[in-house]
Amino acid sequence: MNAQTPDKSRATFEEMRRILRELPGPDQEAVTAVVHRESQLTKPAGALGRLEQIAEWLAGWQGRARPQVERPRIAVFAGTHGVAARGVSAYPPEVTQQMVQNFLSGGAAINQLAQAIDADLRIYELDLAHPTADFTRGPAMSEARAANAMAYGMMAAEPGIDLLCLGEMGIANTTTAATLCAALFGGRGIDWAGPGTGVQGEALQRKIAVIDEALVRHKDLIGTHDPLDLLAAVGGEEFAAIAGAVLAARMGRIPVLLDGFACTTAAAVLWAIDRRALAHCLVAHRSAEPGHTRLLETIGQRPLLDFGMRLGEASAAALAVPLLKAAAACHNGMATFAEAGVSSKSS
Amino acid sequence: MNAQTPDKSRATFEEMRRILRELPGPDQEAVTAVVHRESQLTKPAGALGRLEQIAEWLAGWQGRARPQVERPRIAVFAGTHGVAARGVSAYPPEVTQQMVQNFLSGGAAINQLAQAIDADLRIYELDLAHPTADFTRGPAMSEARAANAMAYGMMAAEPGIDLLCLGEMGIANTTTAATLCAALFGGRGIDWAGPGTGVQGEALQRKIAVIDEALVRHKDLIGTHDPLDLLAAVGGEEFAAIAGAVLAARMGRIPVLLDGFACTTAAAVLWAIDRRALAHCLVAHRSAEPGHTRLLETIGQRPLLDFGMRLGEASAAALAVPLLKAAAACHNGMATFAEAGVSSKSS
Repeated sequence: MNAQTPDKSRATFEEMRRILRELPGPDQEAVTAVVHRESQLTKPAGALGRLEQIAEWLAGWQGRARPQVERPRIAVFAGTHGVAARGVSAYPPEVTQQMVQNFLSGGAAINQLAQAIDADLRIYELDLAHPTADFTRGPAMSEARAANAMAYGMMAAEPGIDLLCLGEMGIANTTTAATLCAALFGGRGIDWAGPGTGVQGEALQRKIAVIDEALVRHKDLIGTHDPLDLLAAVGGEEFAAIAGAVLAARMGRIPVLLDGFACTTAAAVLWAIDRRALAHCLVAHRSAEPGHTRLLETIGQRPLLDFGMRLGEASAAALAVPLLKAAAACHNGMATFAEAGVSSKSS
Repeated sequence: MNAQTPDKSRATFEEMRRILRELPGPDQEAVTAVVHRESQLTKPAGALGRLEQIAEWLAGWQGRARPQVERPRIAVFAGTHGVAARGVSAYPPEVTQQMVQNFLSGGAAINQLAQAIDADLRIYELDLAHPTADFTRGPAMSEARAANAMAYGMMAAEPGIDLLCLGEMGIANTTTAATLCAALFGGRGIDWAGPGTGVQGEALQRKIAVIDEALVRHKDLIGTHDPLDLLAAVGGEEFAAIAGAVLAARMGRIPVLLDGFACTTAAAVLWAIDRRALAHCLVAHRSAEPGHTRLLETIGQRPLLDFGMRLGEASAAALAVPLLKAAAACHNGMATFAEAGVSSKSS
């Protein structure tokens, strides 16, 4: 780990805020080199569309003129939520731990997707045996617990990996995501809630009511607009861990692919503090969860894919990895007009 | 090759029409097996979104309950166009042959993309030394030439491959595509023309005028609404070859990924004859070429990607292959709720 990673047992929000004040920018020299080379490759200018923008982005955040995606890591953070007891999910709370076992034995979607792209898949378990508190009654967790979860998440951004895909598992965490989005960006339950694992009708109305209840409970804190305090109040451990991973990746020059609604919400905590904080992140996919589209508009991110997925567990992030590999492969491997003896534009 | 492939030196449109009358449907038993298994996998129902639809589609057209994409082929058809002499492209006509050389020496985008997915890349050269005639003055080619090109294209759908990615190279062929679309589906040059390799301003106006000139020249034939006759009149050899490849893939139970505007136009010739003809095809990507969006709406296809690409050479089709591999991998590899000991939905 790099020197700026706090000791995870003594992490504080103040330390996280200090790191946020030191965010490095992209390597402009690498970006310039990519833009220059792009113009010489055997294709009409701009004809590879977003693949060209991805090559520039990868180069800028990896800090090298020839970007590569050869050592991608997929980090899935699992957390348990007190609010799950309120019946906001279509599945019982114990499914979080059961799915962690499924990840460890290779049976989940993310296992197949990680294998298909030959990525290093790591499952990071937060304190699953001790769910966060039901945030309709008080804060979900203390600052210490949230800051420690952030520090734990930072471990995912290990030196040597060249892309970090982030995702989560946590029954009830679309309720957490919706509440956190409303607390950070305004609006009410109806604006941010969606079916999640598949709730509808009366159950969806209950989910919306639970979110509104939490927003009333924490209205004074919401008025202070402190994103890290809101993360502790109405977030979850996996959200804090993902925010930590995003932050550590920035310091370690590792580009990040964000997965769906819960994952993007976690990263958006940093965006709420500093608008530059997610410049090294792309969102892999527009989730079918309606709150995600609203969030993407808020933070100004255009997802790579729109496949109607709503699974989490970094599945969409893993799905998008070959698109980044392709961008790097085209940029690095194509011949220039001069090398190939192809006539340039006549006009 | 299967028995229904005509001798390519004596092919006729009548033979193609006969094949079109015998189009096989999907394997419904395989589709049913996939749908049944999907419902048991460890994820909320429908949570993999379009990946689930892709698994069903692959199974139906491969005719097996466990679809695979292990032997994909990328077929790029190159053709030369008499209308190129009218200055409708940003590049001189000789770039078609130069790019074929670039494909053969491994320097083009499609070479990098094919390598990234370990696909079998084949370049199919039509009669490059003899461009089709300028279709503003008469028919682009005879029925015999078009039918022979179709038969040549059929060779790409060899038994043993499990996915066929189609694309093209041909300076001026977005002019050909726009003209063919207008002839098949109505509208004028302004409705279907776009920048192609990058023409704008006066050059784009000239391109539009050339298309309108061709539509006037062939107005009697257009009135007969015979898609194959229109293909010969205002098409190109690579368009005929792609139509042939799509048809042969259908007969050989090989799903097809279509690339961009020119490629989809070629396939749409078959759709204009029979609305079921492209059920085994997916469009990989929405081209930045505006006519493609209009064409996709016409034939009712929703592309997998929207990356603003406009290169052709099957680049977007190759880019989308890992999405299909991922769909198959999830479907085949995931554990069921029972296998993983995960609780099912509680409601």
